[in-house]
Amino acid sequence: MNPFTDQPAHSIGSLGEQRLIAAIRRWLGTASPEAPFGIGDDCAVVPAGRAAQLLTVDPVIHGQHFDDAVPPRAVGEKLFKRNLSDIAAMGGRPRAAVVALALDAHVRIDWLEAFYRGLAAVSRRFSVPLVGGDVAQHQGGIVATLTLVGEAGPRVLTRRGAKSGDWIYVTGHLGGSLPSRHHYRFTPRLAEGAWLARRAEVRSMMDVSDGLAKDIHSLTPQGTMPAICPESLPIRKGCDVRAALCDGEDYELVFTVSAKADTAALERAWKRTFPRTRLSCLGRFVHRAEFPASAIKLEEFHGYEHLR
Amino acid sequence: MNPFTDQPAHSIGSLGEQRLIAAIRRWLGTASPEAPFGIGDDCAVVPAGRAAQLLTVDPVIHGQHFDDAVPPRAVGEKLFKRNLSDIAAMGGRPRAAVVALALDAHVRIDWLEAFYRGLAAVSRRFSVPLVGGDVAQHQGGIVATLTLVGEAGPRVLTRRGAKSGDWIYVTGHLGGSLPSRHHYRFTPRLAEGAWLARRAEVRSMMDVSDGLAKDIHSLTPQGTMPAICPESLPIRKGCDVRAALCDGEDYELVFTVSAKADTAALERAWKRTFPRTRLSCLGRFVHRAEFPASAIKLEEFHGYEHLR
Repeated sequence: MNPFTDQPAHSIGSLGEQRLIAAIRRWLGTASPEAPFGIGDDCAVVPAGRAAQLLTVDPVIHGQHFDDAVPPRAVGEKLFKRNLSDIAAMGGRPRAAVVALALDAHVRIDWLEAFYRGLAAVSRRFSVPLVGGDVAQHQGGIVATLTLVGEAGPRVLTRRGAKSGDWIYVTGHLGGSLPSRHHYRFTPRLAEGAWLARRAEVRSMMDVSDGLAKDIHSLTPQGTMPAICPESLPIRKGCDVRAALCDGEDYELVFTVSAKADTAALERAWKRTFPRTRLSCLGRFVHRAEFPASAIKLEEFHGYEHLR
Repeated sequence: MNPFTDQPAHSIGSLGEQRLIAAIRRWLGTASPEAPFGIGDDCAVVPAGRAAQLLTVDPVIHGQHFDDAVPPRAVGEKLFKRNLSDIAAMGGRPRAAVVALALDAHVRIDWLEAFYRGLAAVSRRFSVPLVGGDVAQHQGGIVATLTLVGEAGPRVLTRRGAKSGDWIYVTGHLGGSLPSRHHYRFTPRLAEGAWLARRAEVRSMMDVSDGLAKDIHSLTPQGTMPAICPESLPIRKGCDVRAALCDGEDYELVFTVSAKADTAALERAWKRTFPRTRLSCLGRFVHRAEFPASAIKLEEFHGYEHLR
C-alpha cells in the first residue's frame, strides 16, 4: 500500500491532533495502559524492577526499511520486532516501549491504523505494553522510531567474552531476508536469547542484522579470525553463500561457546527446548596462522553498510 | 546553517557508517560511557534503580522544530532539553538517554558534529549519559528522536489531581518563544519540578509546550473552568496576551495547589529556593456559574495544534 494520499478526507491531516490521538488510542486498545502507566501524561511511569535495565532504539523509515510492497501492519510489527531482537541478543526480557512518529500530513489514515494495529499485535503477543509516544509533522516522509526498555536476566550476554578456540553458533537460517519477506515475518528470538544467557558455556552473543560477514567482527577476539566452514552455513532456500553472509536483516542470534564446553550436550539441550529452531555450529575463532584453507575468506564479503 | 550540502566531501555520505560512528563517539566524548553501559552493543545496560521509571520521547524535525536559523549545536541542546522538561513535569530525575537519527546522506559533517556536541553539552550539564542510539539513512530530511529514561521522585506528580477551587501557578514567562529564541535557549525546570513534587499542597503538574490555553485543559477538573486573571499572566517582553497563551514551546511548569493550602508560605519558600525564577498565581478552577467576568475566555484562544 502506498502510504500517501492526495485525497484530504483520507489523510491524517484531515483529522487534526486531538482526533488522531483518540484514534491511535482506539487502535492500540489493550496494548496501551491508562496514564500514568501509559499514554496521556508528560512521561509514562514504569513500575520499578529489580534488575539492570536494557535500553535500545531502532527506527523504520519509508524507502529504507520498508516500501509500498510491505503491508502497513507488517511495518508496525517489524518496527517492534527488530527492537525485541536487540533485547533477545542480550538475553533480556522486554518491559515497555515508546514510539515516536514523524509523519507527512498526506499519510493515509487507513495506512496508519494498520501500522498501529501491527504494533498492538506484537505488544500483546510478547506482553510488552506501549506506554507512550509522540506524533509530529514531517513534510515528505515517514520515520517511526521505537525505544524499548528491558530487564536484564540473571546474566547480561554482551558482544565481548569470546576467546581464541571458542565455537561460533547461529540460530535459524541466513540470507534472502527481503525476497522471502523474512525481514518483517521473523519472530524475535527472545526465548532462545534468555535460555542461552543462562548457559555458562555461552560467552557472547548478538543478533545478525547487517549480515553475518559484517556482524561477526563484533564478536571476534583480538588476534583471531572466524574460521567458518561453508558447508555449515544454514542458507535459506533459494540463496547462495554470498546472500547468507551479506544480505542482512536476518534477526537471528549468533553466539560463541567456550572451547572447553561439551557442545554435544548443549546441542542436545537445545533440540529438546527448541525442537523447531535450527542451530548451526559454523566453526571457531582461530589465530591467523591456523586459518584452514577450506574456511570462508570473510574479507571477500561485505555486510550491509549504512549511510552509503 | 543550512544542514545540507551538495559537496560530497563535506557530507556524511562520504564518511560511511564505520567512520561516522567513530566520529560520533569522538564528538560525544565523556557524555557517552563505554559499552555495555553505553554505545557499542545491542542494548545499553542501565544499572538498576530503586524507584519507578519515567519514560518519555520527543523528536526535533528539520522544518518543524528547527530551521536554518537555529545553530546546529542548539538543535542538539533543544532535543535533549525538551525531553528533560517532560521529566521535570513529573518531578523526576533523568538517568539515561538514547538518540535515533534519520538523516539524508547530504547532511553536512560539520552540522552533525555541532549537533552532537550540543547533545553532549546538555548530557554533561545535567549528568545524564547518552547510552545508545541509531543512525539511519532517510532521503529528504532530518528527524532526530531522543528517548529519556528517568527515575521517579518520592512522589510522581501527574496531570490529574486538581480539584475545584485549586490554584493555578506557572513558572517563568510565557509567549514569544520563537522570536526570543527561548525555544532552544530555555533551561528545563528539573530542580523546580523535583522541589514541587515534594510539596504536598501541589496536586498536579505538566510542562507548557503547546501554549497555556491548550495545555491547561489537561489539568482542569471535570465540571470546572480555569479562571485566569489577565493581569496575572507573566507575559514575555514584547508579547501580548494572545502570544502568552498560544505560542507554545514555553517549557515552563504549570501546576495546581490545593485550595486549602497556605499559598503565601509556598510562595515565600519558592522565593528562598528559586530567587531568580518568577512564580505566578494565575487564578483557580471554578464552576461554570462562578466564572468571573474579568477572567480570560480561553475558548477564544487556541494553542499549537499539531498535524494541521
